[in-house]
Amino acid sequence: MMKRMWPMVVLTAMGLGYAAGAAAYDFLQPLPDKVPVPKDNPLTEAKIVLGKQLYFDRRLSVNGTVSCNSCHDVMAGGQDNRALSVGALGKSGRRNAPTVWNVAFQTVLYWDGRASSLEEMLHSHLLDDTVMAMPDANSVRHRLDMIPGYHKAFAKVFGGTDAATLDNIAKALASYIRTLVTPGSDFDHYILGNKSALSASAQRGLNDFREIGCMACHFGPNFAGPAPGPYLKMGDGFYELFPNFVGSKYDKEYDLTADIGRYEYSHDPGEKRMYRLPVLRNIAVTGPYFHNGSVPTLSEAVRVMARTQDKTTLTTEQTQDIVAFLESLTGHFPAQTMPKLPPTPHEVVWSWEQSKSQGQGIHAADDAAIKP
Amino acid sequence: MMKRMWPMVVLTAMGLGYAAGAAAYDFLQPLPDKVPVPKDNPLTEAKIVLGKQLYFDRRLSVNGTVSCNSCHDVMAGGQDNRALSVGALGKSGRRNAPTVWNVAFQTVLYWDGRASSLEEMLHSHLLDDTVMAMPDANSVRHRLDMIPGYHKAFAKVFGGTDAATLDNIAKALASYIRTLVTPGSDFDHYILGNKSALSASAQRGLNDFREIGCMACHFGPNFAGPAPGPYLKMGDGFYELFPNFVGSKYDKEYDLTADIGRYEYSHDPGEKRMYRLPVLRNIAVTGPYFHNGSVPTLSEAVRVMARTQDKTTLTTEQTQDIVAFLESLTGHFPAQTMPKLPPTPHEVVWSWEQSKSQGQGIHAADDAAIKP
Repeated sequence: MMKRMWPMVVLTAMGLGYAAGAAAYDFLQPLPDKVPVPKDNPLTEAKIVLGKQLYFDRRLSVNGTVSCNSCHDVMAGGQDNRALSVGALGKSGRRNAPTVWNVAFQTVLYWDGRASSLEEMLHSHLLDDTVMAMPDANSVRHRLDMIPGYHKAFAKVFGGTDAATLDNIAKALASYIRTLVTPGSDFDHYILGNKSALSASAQRGLNDFREIGCMACHFGPNFAGPAPGPYLKMGDGFYELFPNFVGSKYDKEYDLTADIGRYEYSHDPGEKRMYRLPVLRNIAVTGPYFHNGSVPTLSEAVRVMARTQDKTTLTTEQTQDIVAFLESLTGHFPAQTMPKLPPTPHEVVWSWEQSKSQGQGIHAADDAAIKP
Repeated sequence: MMKRMWPMVVLTAMGLGYAAGAAAYDFLQPLPDKVPVPKDNPLTEAKIVLGKQLYFDRRLSVNGTVSCNSCHDVMAGGQDNRALSVGALGKSGRRNAPTVWNVAFQTVLYWDGRASSLEEMLHSHLLDDTVMAMPDANSVRHRLDMIPGYHKAFAKVFGGTDAATLDNIAKALASYIRTLVTPGSDFDHYILGNKSALSASAQRGLNDFREIGCMACHFGPNFAGPAPGPYLKMGDGFYELFPNFVGSKYDKEYDLTADIGRYEYSHDPGEKRMYRLPVLRNIAVTGPYFHNGSVPTLSEAVRVMARTQDKTTLTTEQTQDIVAFLESLTGHFPAQTMPKLPPTPHEVVWSWEQSKSQGQGIHAADDAAIKP
């Protein structure tokens, strides 16, 4: 597992690379043409189509109220502009929902990197009571098996008559999510050779971003460290301490130190407040910011980062320039067709009843049954 | 206002028409080629595009959690398969969310017909605390005006720099909704001359549907009475008493008499338990059924209707045949592209905070502010 060692290696390589004019690793990269795909879940058209249906289907949540797209809205920036999203039961988790766009280039999932693959993350999302809140894997399978369109699609894509397993649901969803990439940002055009694609301000911002130290960690295709490949494999996290320098006014203002990060999960004292590097692509359209969504604007996020990570107080112009650079990371969101969701048969009873004892959005749900 | 008189007129005309082989009114109609459009809100491409964005935009709800599509899912049957939908604040209304598909052919909106147009219905939906729960018209306008993409689109479509009014929001949404029609059902092919488009069972079901009396009210393009036109204008409701014959076991089993229907709204004692005729197109994919969503399956809904409206107890075969006929009303849901939602600028602060005093999905929201 990669922790803070990596940034030191990178800093050294950066120093050598930039000084010598040739880096072993391209710290500044356009979005790759191809996404990393695990060997045991190859991308197929039929699987992507099925995954897209599932992504938009509220029947994957316990009471039929939210879909993946409810919090990770691909029609918007891939998230919901909320500090904390609201799951099927009206509950929120403690961390901000990141954009789903370009997540295929991350080596670990969740802010604390506790999932080693999209598939693993999706497993836990379906059963998390602050997200889809399905009671168990069998309930999910049973739910989908009651819908002939899904029953047939799973059989076709995965084979067998009992194919709507949680494993396969996660595989189909992950396949669709791997298609969600936003190439063609101004930055991409710039790094591919069109030097006029970035404004003077954005070019100054990029320079500041490098000089101040942001790029020590924020590099690679997502500006979140290396994508899965020779430098890091899927499951190898690329983590950083946040806040790195505690004690600024921001700690209290944005409640930055309460969350213990990876420590909660790993119980390794060295991982207190360690987080996976977040994606910077499309950051200008995916506020609010940070693991707890507490920082409302991008310019404030830039000020907070400079102070907490690099002990730097930015000038107004530096802040504006870095924001201009970050704006250049907004890519082209490709046009998409809407999926058509296979209908619930008219003899299937969904028993997602409202709890009479709770007036406020709490719903209990039973499994579906056929009642002709 | 049309109440129960109309069905009597219709019954008479039907008797004459069917007996004489020539009816003044086509009780059985394919879905019309054109939807009724109010003179003060002509359909334009730009308005439809804007309306589609708004339809899928969660920022139209107080806390950014639900869009129109959350409860009226056009990727599914135009609704959410729930007895009662769940609004932005986790609250439900008391009546089932009907499908949005083909609603353009209805003369009044809501189960009790209290809105005379789609536009009027949309106004109240945005401000209803069981739906989008926006506090007032100004909040909605302010919310959209903070988003440059919307500000420009409203100026372009409606003119002026202060065009994102609730009136215009409703007009744009209504324009998109008027494009949501599902032609090409088996029934449509049948009524247009392809007599083999309906199975023998569905043809028997259609005959039963007529003979038992269902068609006395369920006729016209949506099987919900005349569309806006020479027989009924927009705002003229086509209502029926439900249950018509009280006293069956179903009254209690499905809590059919508690809701007082239009009376609650009109205070006219003659309108107790009077409801607008619901759309039967796509009924096979839009369960659960009735104003309170209490009846889970279509076959049970058919049994309940025959008993409560026509005092008829159907045989098993009759029920199956009528269900087969109703299945033939499922139309072709046209392919759609996803809208791209204009991004929230990174300097806009959405203050949709979680209420600390409520643990369960209740969120208070303030207006947005710009905070650079």
